Amino acid sequence: MRVGIVGASGFVGGELLRLLLLHPEVEVTSATSRKYTGQYVYRVHANLRNITDLQFIDQNLEDVVDSSDLVFTAVPHGTAVNIMPRLIESGVKIVDMSADFRLKNPDAYPRWYEYNHPNPELLSKFVFGLPEIRREEVKNSQLVSCPGCMALTSILALAPLVKENIIDTGKIVVDAKIGSSGGGVTPSRATHHAERYGVIRPYKPVGHRHTAEVEQELSSIAGSDVTVCLSTHAVNMVRGILCTIHVFLKKPLAIPDVWKIYRGAYSGEPFIRLVRDRQGIYRFPDPKVVIGSNFCDIGFELDDRADRLVVMSATDNLVKGAAGNGVQCMNLMVGFDEKAGLEAAAIHPV
Amino acid sequence: MRVGIVGASGFVGGELLRLLLLHPEVEVTSATSRKYTGQYVYRVHANLRNITDLQFIDQNLEDVVDSSDLVFTAVPHGTAVNIMPRLIESGVKIVDMSADFRLKNPDAYPRWYEYNHPNPELLSKFVFGLPEIRREEVKNSQLVSCPGCMALTSILALAPLVKENIIDTGKIVVDAKIGSSGGGVTPSRATHHAERYGVIRPYKPVGHRHTAEVEQELSSIAGSDVTVCLSTHAVNMVRGILCTIHVFLKKPLAIPDVWKIYRGAYSGEPFIRLVRDRQGIYRFPDPKVVIGSNFCDIGFELDDRADRLVVMSATDNLVKGAAGNGVQCMNLMVGFDEKAGLEAAAIHPV
Amino acid sequence: MRVGIVGASGFVGGELLRLLLLHPEVEVTSATSRKYTGQYVYRVHANLRNITDLQFIDQNLEDVVDSSDLVFTAVPHGTAVNIMPRLIESGVKIVDMSADFRLKNPDAYPRWYEYNHPNPELLSKFVFGLPEIRREEVKNSQLVSCPGCMALTSILALAPLVKENIIDTGKIVVDAKIGSSGGGVTPSRATHHAERYGVIRPYKPVGHRHTAEVEQELSSIAGSDVTVCLSTHAVNMVRGILCTIHVFLKKPLAIPDVWKIYRGAYSGEPFIRLVRDRQGIYRFPDPKVVIGSNFCDIGFELDDRADRLVVMSATDNLVKGAAGNGVQCMNLMVGFDEKAGLEAAAIHPV
Amino acid sequence: MRVGIVGASGFVGGELLRLLLLHPEVEVTSATSRKYTGQYVYRVHANLRNITDLQFIDQNLEDVVDSSDLVFTAVPHGTAVNIMPRLIESGVKIVDMSADFRLKNPDAYPRWYEYNHPNPELLSKFVFGLPEIRREEVKNSQLVSCPGCMALTSILALAPLVKENIIDTGKIVVDAKIGSSGGGVTPSRATHHAERYGVIRPYKPVGHRHTAEVEQELSSIAGSDVTVCLSTHAVNMVRGILCTIHVFLKKPLAIPDVWKIYRGAYSGEPFIRLVRDRQGIYRFPDPKVVIGSNFCDIGFELDDRADRLVVMSATDNLVKGAAGNGVQCMNLMVGFDEKAGLEAAAIHPV
Repeated sequence: MRVGIVGASGFVGGELLRLLLLHPEVEVTSATSRKYTGQYVYRVHANLRNITDLQFIDQNLEDVVDSSDLVFTAVPHGTAVNIMPRLIESGVKIVDMSADFRLKNPDAYPRWYEYNHPNPELLSKFVFGLPEIRREEVKNSQLVSCPGCMALTSILALAPLVKENIIDTGKIVVDAKIGSSGGGVTPSRATHHAERYGVIRPYKPVGHRHTAEVEQELSSIAGSDVTVCLSTHAVNMVRGILCTIHVFLKKPLAIPDVWKIYRGAYSGEPFIRLVRDRQGIYRFPDPKVVIGSNFCDIGFELDDRADRLVVMSATDNLVKGAAGNGVQCMNLMVGFDEKAGLEAAAIHPV
Repeated sequence: MRVGIVGASGFVGGELLRLLLLHPEVEVTSATSRKYTGQYVYRVHANLRNITDLQFIDQNLEDVVDSSDLVFTAVPHGTAVNIMPRLIESGVKIVDMSADFRLKNPDAYPRWYEYNHPNPELLSKFVFGLPEIRREEVKNSQLVSCPGCMALTSILALAPLVKENIIDTGKIVVDAKIGSSGGGVTPSRATHHAERYGVIRPYKPVGHRHTAEVEQELSSIAGSDVTVCLSTHAVNMVRGILCTIHVFLKKPLAIPDVWKIYRGAYSGEPFIRLVRDRQGIYRFPDPKVVIGSNFCDIGFELDDRADRLVVMSATDNLVKGAAGNGVQCMNLMVGFDEKAGLEAAAIHPV
Repeated sequence: MRVGIVGASGFVGGELLRLLLLHPEVEVTSATSRKYTGQYVYRVHANLRNITDLQFIDQNLEDVVDSSDLVFTAVPHGTAVNIMPRLIESGVKIVDMSADFRLKNPDAYPRWYEYNHPNPELLSKFVFGLPEIRREEVKNSQLVSCPGCMALTSILALAPLVKENIIDTGKIVVDAKIGSSGGGVTPSRATHHAERYGVIRPYKPVGHRHTAEVEQELSSIAGSDVTVCLSTHAVNMVRGILCTIHVFLKKPLAIPDVWKIYRGAYSGEPFIRLVRDRQGIYRFPDPKVVIGSNFCDIGFELDDRADRLVVMSATDNLVKGAAGNGVQCMNLMVGFDEKAGLEAAAIHPV
Repeated sequence: MRVGIVGASGFVGGELLRLLLLHPEVEVTSATSRKYTGQYVYRVHANLRNITDLQFIDQNLEDVVDSSDLVFTAVPHGTAVNIMPRLIESGVKIVDMSADFRLKNPDAYPRWYEYNHPNPELLSKFVFGLPEIRREEVKNSQLVSCPGCMALTSILALAPLVKENIIDTGKIVVDAKIGSSGGGVTPSRATHHAERYGVIRPYKPVGHRHTAEVEQELSSIAGSDVTVCLSTHAVNMVRGILCTIHVFLKKPLAIPDVWKIYRGAYSGEPFIRLVRDRQGIYRFPDPKVVIGSNFCDIGFELDDRADRLVVMSATDNLVKGAAGNGVQCMNLMVGFDEKAGLEAAAIHPV
């Protein structure tokens, strides 16, 4: 299948290239970049040297759609929305990595993203691309909008609990930690290695934009409003997210009860691993052991002193948190094996 | 003043040496280490080369007390308790860095530390060494037991809120992140650089021992039982703690109300900085900017969607979290300027 | 093909498992570990959770050879030599990752490895497993001994220069930098994250053991004695080697001359990339962009003020520097596509 | 004494502030920054919160000289040269941190710094500010130009060998490794944490500008031309330089001979430590144990197989490599104790 990537010079674009260039069923036919037009892809994504001789082309949508059966859009929020009508019109399948089509309520955009959505009628046409939650919808869709990395990591951890209606949905605390690739490629004094190395920086203690997606999806599962308290931290690594989720139980549960809920929800899922060991170094989820893989690891611990359940979930923000999840959606949309191109184990130690 | 250090080869011992060797009023007269007896201190603490020619002596308490007016004990939990009777008998002032005298209820030891306290009658003789909370008691004490690093960082952030009786004291979530020096010097596969680098490892999602101290001190302030949900994470740095504390308000508050509470509690405190800026890279507390200093930085943000208050506190776990706080207690106990030997700014960037 | 791994719990063993479990032509039939016998492989190599249900077996050579057509030995130096006679007797093909069969002169063992080789007659039976230098020998061999990671990275950079007889072979300086996985899994105070993080530690300024291999192979190419001055440094990363090689030219050369030499030597090589760009971040080899891949990147710069040529070579020490190179040798030994199982691009950024 | 800092918002400016604000004999009267005029210094240098209430002023030289007895200039190369005539005219003492007055031969500027020096007559008025080499000159000077960080670290290691005329001065290889603070505060894709973390990036294998200073000073000591081959690498840390220096001996030496040379050169030096231990983790110089201190650690090892001597030197690039060395020069220029304000031990572990 011929695949194009609009916006291929960022971190998500680079990761899409890495996965798609080695995907057994895919040929990457175009990769656009306004800034690097005409340059070899490997000048920007140096890991792809000798893997591809592709060159970036300018962001000419006609060229992209003419040579593609499916297009990934990995441009910034607020930009995707502008190019989407033309892409949709062409009839190609689309997997959008931006936030521009994740939220179904147009009013959410001015509130969380500070712009008025110019094409609110398109919002309902996009499926929220989280296969573990909406697999059948993704399979039957031409247009998929992929979740944000911290949203995905939170939703996968919380969905089974919300579905079972066992937690106080007004006091869900998600304490998220993320590496520096999560903030995009644009350099600033805040991303300078000397200022960013060694931090535990609480960059968004309240009001992070991914909150909106998490609440939308969990409320949909719950059938009622769910409030999520998301606090985000930048930590000293490049890849990886850990969400430590603190929830309060409506009534006491035992460990086997929780196991049963998660096994019921995720047994058979190819990219979910339940992690809760009695010994070893990695007894609970830790992004260190998912780096480079499409896994989302989920584990938990009970604090019966406070009827608190601590759920931990870990992803590689660029793989299951972004490009890998997008490829998984693509596989479903076009009928490939869901795991195609995504079977690599994590690199460890790294 | 002549000072001895029992247990000087660990990270806290090394930091005590660094601070005390340059303290204007102190002469370090002994530093014990069973493992390194007879070796130069700088063989173990390589930063002290050319700073001192001191050699480790064996852990001979007679020699230590004979040459000291005040003794720091920085030996492991369960060991301090064994040497303390002899030290106390000698009449020297004591600052204990272990957990053996922090908890006032003897029953807490089997529960949290898995041993029965052999000298429960001594527990009440030690003052909990947190000057910002118990300055007058510390001043008037001969025997001080210093808090654990994460406990101190949590208590300082929470005490003003508990005192004002404005939060739900049954649902206090402390999500703590700490560097690798917090785990002590003993090597293991878990502390091996290749396995420890780049982690966000939730090593104790529930049941961390410091919980006991935090609850003891906050309950004392509240005049009723306070339950603290402490979850601890190892992150990729050597020094530093960030506690992200999620609490739920009994009634809505505005930002100025919270400012007023913290300013009321801590104005004039030499080592507390309130950090909540509108711009800049370090708008909230981040351990990166306290490294090497005795500051505890505290900041907050309101999430009025959920009546949640997020409080963030940051310390260098070896300075304000341990050795620096110990020296601050010592200064108070003997009548030195509270800031003596502790005025260094943090090293930045590092 | 059925493959066994003797000594599978270390870093090289884990990397062999990662590569072989996903190799299209291989079935891993056994993985031995004395320490972890009976435990799931993924308890030790947490990245392999859900990838394999293999359990470690005890180091019983009969079981291994009975179930294998080819065996990797990844046990420590001095141990491989003891188990090799029995393995050889069984007739399986062997790829040894230790140093015990790299050196062809038995006298080199007491000198560099501090033991007398018990089976010197076996040394000549092993081919030095560096396909870019000895491809035909590897293809035709039953017994292959893989180079050390820093040796491999040095030899690949130097071989073309030595072959062309253009450098002073008495003054070859190799300044090597390596991540913490290069030192093996055994924990010590030196490998403790708190002591190992942030170092630039010159741990072996002279006399590193890999010197012997480099000199052996380069002398063989030169037809005369070559002296290599190898100085090794531990740096703050887990994976990766950079060798910065300073050589002095016998007569002046221009940039195109050097290009010609390296292109002549390595054009067509699937795992060598020549890296020397005019712009971009990664203009010269940097291990950061080979992590997880089997590439060895080689670049150079001329310093005509001193007739010095600086050659830089970068590998992932666990892939091309160890397990990946071993798999490449295996592919050649049994007639698979040389690239089978080794086509992954590097993970970037990581 | 009243001190002004022109260009105080960069890393060197911040470090000058940290050292001078706590210097017992100094009052910082002005700190200029065009970009941050009017902002509190601690908004940029967050470590200085509660240490100072100083605000940045615009770069108005009149204001600076009127309120200062001595001025540090920490502006970029090419800028210092423009402001210097006015500063000199005012009669204040000056310590310049830029490269604009380090080289004595005006022809060196177009060659190494790509500009023609507009005030060549001033070059001879500045003393090269390296107290260990030119203490008396610094003492008697009004105008001091401080060395570059890698130059200083190289010169201190090499000067005794050059002075004793025992090495081949045509083949001096300096393989330098440096942290990210060495490159200044300006953000770029190359300094972005995601691209800079985990690198061993040979950013200047030949032709680094500091070469000129090293050759100038060593040639002056030798009394003849010395050629230095400097290759520089960016490594994954914020502070610190290690220079690994490979030199070839004119005639064989033994270890005690080398000890004698270095002891002869540096005994009594307050900020030079000779490091060459038989055991321990830090047997040779490692920047990890000088962080935050003004020490330059120097060690060595002999490779008698090749008549090679390996000398290693380590500094904190912002302290002894820049601001600390500048303060040391200031102390000498005005007759303070040379160690005033510089006695802090390194922070360890960090």
